[in-house]
Amino acid sequence: ETSVTLYGRVDGGIGYQQFKGTNPTTGESFKGSNTGMANGIMGGNRWGLKGAEDLGEGLQAVFVLENGFNLSDGTQSDGMFGRQATVGLKSSSWGQLDFGRQTTVASKYLSGVASPFGADWGQASVGSAFSAINSVRYNNMIMYQTPKFSGFQLGLNYSFTGNAGSQGFKTSGGDEPNDKAWGAAVRYANGPLAVGLSYDEYKTSEVRVDGIGGDRDTAIKSWNLAGSYDFDVVEVHAAIGQTRNGWFKHVSAIDYRDIGGTDDMTGRQSWGAINDAKVNSYTLGLSAPVGANGKILASWVMADPKDGFGADRQDKQHFYSLGYTYKLSKRTNVYALGSYGTGVHFYDDLKATQFAVGLRHQF
Amino acid sequence: ETSVTLYGRVDGGIGYQQFKGTNPTTGESFKGSNTGMANGIMGGNRWGLKGAEDLGEGLQAVFVLENGFNLSDGTQSDGMFGRQATVGLKSSSWGQLDFGRQTTVASKYLSGVASPFGADWGQASVGSAFSAINSVRYNNMIMYQTPKFSGFQLGLNYSFTGNAGSQGFKTSGGDEPNDKAWGAAVRYANGPLAVGLSYDEYKTSEVRVDGIGGDRDTAIKSWNLAGSYDFDVVEVHAAIGQTRNGWFKHVSAIDYRDIGGTDDMTGRQSWGAINDAKVNSYTLGLSAPVGANGKILASWVMADPKDGFGADRQDKQHFYSLGYTYKLSKRTNVYALGSYGTGVHFYDDLKATQFAVGLRHQF
Amino acid sequence: ETSVTLYGRVDGGIGYQQFKGTNPTTGESFKGSNTGMANGIMGGNRWGLKGAEDLGEGLQAVFVLENGFNLSDGTQSDGMFGRQATVGLKSSSWGQLDFGRQTTVASKYLSGVASPFGADWGQASVGSAFSAINSVRYNNMIMYQTPKFSGFQLGLNYSFTGNAGSQGFKTSGGDEPNDKAWGAAVRYANGPLAVGLSYDEYKTSEVRVDGIGGDRDTAIKSWNLAGSYDFDVVEVHAAIGQTRNGWFKHVSAIDYRDIGGTDDMTGRQSWGAINDAKVNSYTLGLSAPVGANGKILASWVMADPKDGFGADRQDKQHFYSLGYTYKLSKRTNVYALGSYGTGVHFYDDLKATQFAVGLRHQF
Repeated sequence: ETSVTLYGRVDGGIGYQQFKGTNPTTGESFKGSNTGMANGIMGGNRWGLKGAEDLGEGLQAVFVLENGFNLSDGTQSDGMFGRQATVGLKSSSWGQLDFGRQTTVASKYLSGVASPFGADWGQASVGSAFSAINSVRYNNMIMYQTPKFSGFQLGLNYSFTGNAGSQGFKTSGGDEPNDKAWGAAVRYANGPLAVGLSYDEYKTSEVRVDGIGGDRDTAIKSWNLAGSYDFDVVEVHAAIGQTRNGWFKHVSAIDYRDIGGTDDMTGRQSWGAINDAKVNSYTLGLSAPVGANGKILASWVMADPKDGFGADRQDKQHFYSLGYTYKLSKRTNVYALGSYGTGVHFYDDLKATQFAVGLRHQF
Repeated sequence: ETSVTLYGRVDGGIGYQQFKGTNPTTGESFKGSNTGMANGIMGGNRWGLKGAEDLGEGLQAVFVLENGFNLSDGTQSDGMFGRQATVGLKSSSWGQLDFGRQTTVASKYLSGVASPFGADWGQASVGSAFSAINSVRYNNMIMYQTPKFSGFQLGLNYSFTGNAGSQGFKTSGGDEPNDKAWGAAVRYANGPLAVGLSYDEYKTSEVRVDGIGGDRDTAIKSWNLAGSYDFDVVEVHAAIGQTRNGWFKHVSAIDYRDIGGTDDMTGRQSWGAINDAKVNSYTLGLSAPVGANGKILASWVMADPKDGFGADRQDKQHFYSLGYTYKLSKRTNVYALGSYGTGVHFYDDLKATQFAVGLRHQF
Repeated sequence: ETSVTLYGRVDGGIGYQQFKGTNPTTGESFKGSNTGMANGIMGGNRWGLKGAEDLGEGLQAVFVLENGFNLSDGTQSDGMFGRQATVGLKSSSWGQLDFGRQTTVASKYLSGVASPFGADWGQASVGSAFSAINSVRYNNMIMYQTPKFSGFQLGLNYSFTGNAGSQGFKTSGGDEPNDKAWGAAVRYANGPLAVGLSYDEYKTSEVRVDGIGGDRDTAIKSWNLAGSYDFDVVEVHAAIGQTRNGWFKHVSAIDYRDIGGTDDMTGRQSWGAINDAKVNSYTLGLSAPVGANGKILASWVMADPKDGFGADRQDKQHFYSLGYTYKLSKRTNVYALGSYGTGVHFYDDLKATQFAVGLRHQF
């Protein structure tokens, strides 16, 4: 029995990104583009340590320590083990209890069911329109997951600080200094069918807002429902969801701050708590095998802002994406992605285009 | 022969901390509390690489690279290999010589002898009252340790910069820009008996103070004596020590800056070089097996300020702590901690309470 | 087949550095010295993960993730995998294609041929006088290397951002926001003979300068030619090169900012893009085995500024260095270094001295 497994994923290639639109303040049109190295398109670059020790009677001690990094410049993306840092107990009879930072159960259970692209593949990500299943990670979190009963599994997570790392002290009579977040998700898998349902809340602190911008003392809420069915020749994916009072995680599309550093453009990226905001999210997708080693992926994801955004941000955001992977081995594949979006970040005429080809290797 | 071993420790759970007292400036009483994830209570979370290569004739090349991280948010706590980064030679005849960052010989030899909690277990740590054996680490350090002769071992360490990472250049006629630190410790272990004695000095630089606050050009000094005896049904621990002209490492109790961010409270944490300060330290502790896999730990640690602190900081600081561990396997255990302190940081009525339960897994 | 190899190098010891000269502004002479821990003298401290997976028909998927750190204080020196972060394909018929951050082909092919010290060994490094082969690393890079044909190998690298990590968007009609860098090198090895030839360009951006200081929109250029011949009793090394319009990587000698923090001294270190600058570089070196496990290394490296530096920076810079290594095993050795430099950074009377002894262990 080995006590630790070293694993990881390296993913790099060449990419092109373009955006164009009109500055809502100045009325001037703008356009920017970029050709360069693509980094972690099929999934964030990572390496990690993990292990499971049998303690007898179906009980295991488990841990995962996972670092995320940029292949393009070698920097880490989010803390030493910013992707996951957990220790837990796993029982064949009562399930699994984990302590530490990791992705929410909503993200774990739903993103891969909702879209063939999951929460990866650049702007093709289901996270471009669905916030609470977009690889959301919390610190200071306790997670409980049941065993799988007849294909069902239930998961619950509670975080004492949400995105913030350190826990403030609440003084008697004082305001709550910490963000709080909790979520629940259930999934069902039976042969070709997979279904997931989730609910999440993120309560921003009363005195300050850590990690997630916007209003204080706000409960951001999101429910999401996803399903997929594998017809062998094609697997179909669909999901619907709603996010209120803000957004759980930023749309992982282009960072418009690069447009030219204008304050207005910077603001486009800043989502977080927004009282009374409401966004409905929809996606349809499919994947189909092509020969023994190939696979085509396609999806449409849409986010429809109902309330809470300014007068110039009323547009529906659509992303249309097409991907292809080809396995060179069980651990290595090449891939290609093309994606086009309109109404990006709900700006009427903001359009985003992304192309990438790359190589992914897992160890 | 494998050339490198990958190892680590993950430790997380749930904890509660409370403090209450009176602001010495305003006279107002305050109270703060916090329930959240406990992180590394039984010992800092870590992973590392280590190895030992036989060079013949009883000589080995040895190295340790050890990273410390927070399980709660995945961030690293103190540089890439902030816990240890050393290379050295180890001889069965003349001992071991190491180059690099690591804990002092005083910390290595005495903390586990002085207290059943060692320098871990939150505020139950012997480091709450003893500064120079509180897992003190220095950079740019050379350490020499003799082999064990009839149960005796002597260790010496010298650091060119103390807590500071980079070495400044001393100009001719100019002031010394670097902190300097050295220490010596001897330990004796024979069957149930263990004894350790140490002396440390930390000389702050003449022009600036890196890493450790307070007066410049000051020699902080500490001697410590610790002993333990294992009577089988119970192991008894005791230690006494004195620290002058400052403090080697901050008391690892609650960070009072969270009380409300007042400057005065912030100041409570800032120990370092303090000319003419003198603190006597005492501890008594015991541990006792409970069944085949359980163990109870208890301790009292006290720090008594003789000189150098302000008029409102004259109180003796006491911590009373009780712990329990239960082995699920050789590598995995669960634990519980309760601790109560008075006169914390020598403030007359500052009280600190800590509870935690957790799971620790080693790989 | 193992999917990942964990490897590294730890290198530490004791060193002495001294510099002395005259402040060109004030006319005052100064002298500074430093005795302390030597860190990575024979080569930067590192650990890494690497692997190669056979894909059939002579094709392999390859990756390298390499972290650099300081043994003296345990901090990382340049991002998580700041030494290398690449994924690629390697074919026995068409060569190797890598994506990610790594050293340039000029540095890979020439530095070890040009000098017995390569680009390591403190100020004895060939990089003290040759800029483009001084372990230069770029982000967002694509590298192609041919297989070796009759001892010949050609390598090409192109970076979308040079030293900068993130890629800016170029707007229509706007300036190019990214540095760009490319290089080509060819090497030939046949028995005792090794030859390398390289050409590099670094184009600073039109709007700002990332990572490399100095003028914008400047093409820094360097060609270098190196050769070595092993006569068994002695191996001889020589190289010649020229760098124009700036410098590729700072001279890795003493950091003169420590002299006393004067602005003028700080400025001595700041090389980068300098329009119309021209420096010719020369080196001669040799290494000779001494007994079964020992080796002596010696070199002279010189940089001759032709244009572009101020009136007080007209001197030729010379470094004279002597080194010795002794193998304790295949993976472990001890070493010693002595080096003396004049006209450092082209200042007429700036002299730099370095001594070090150390231990290096590889795993």
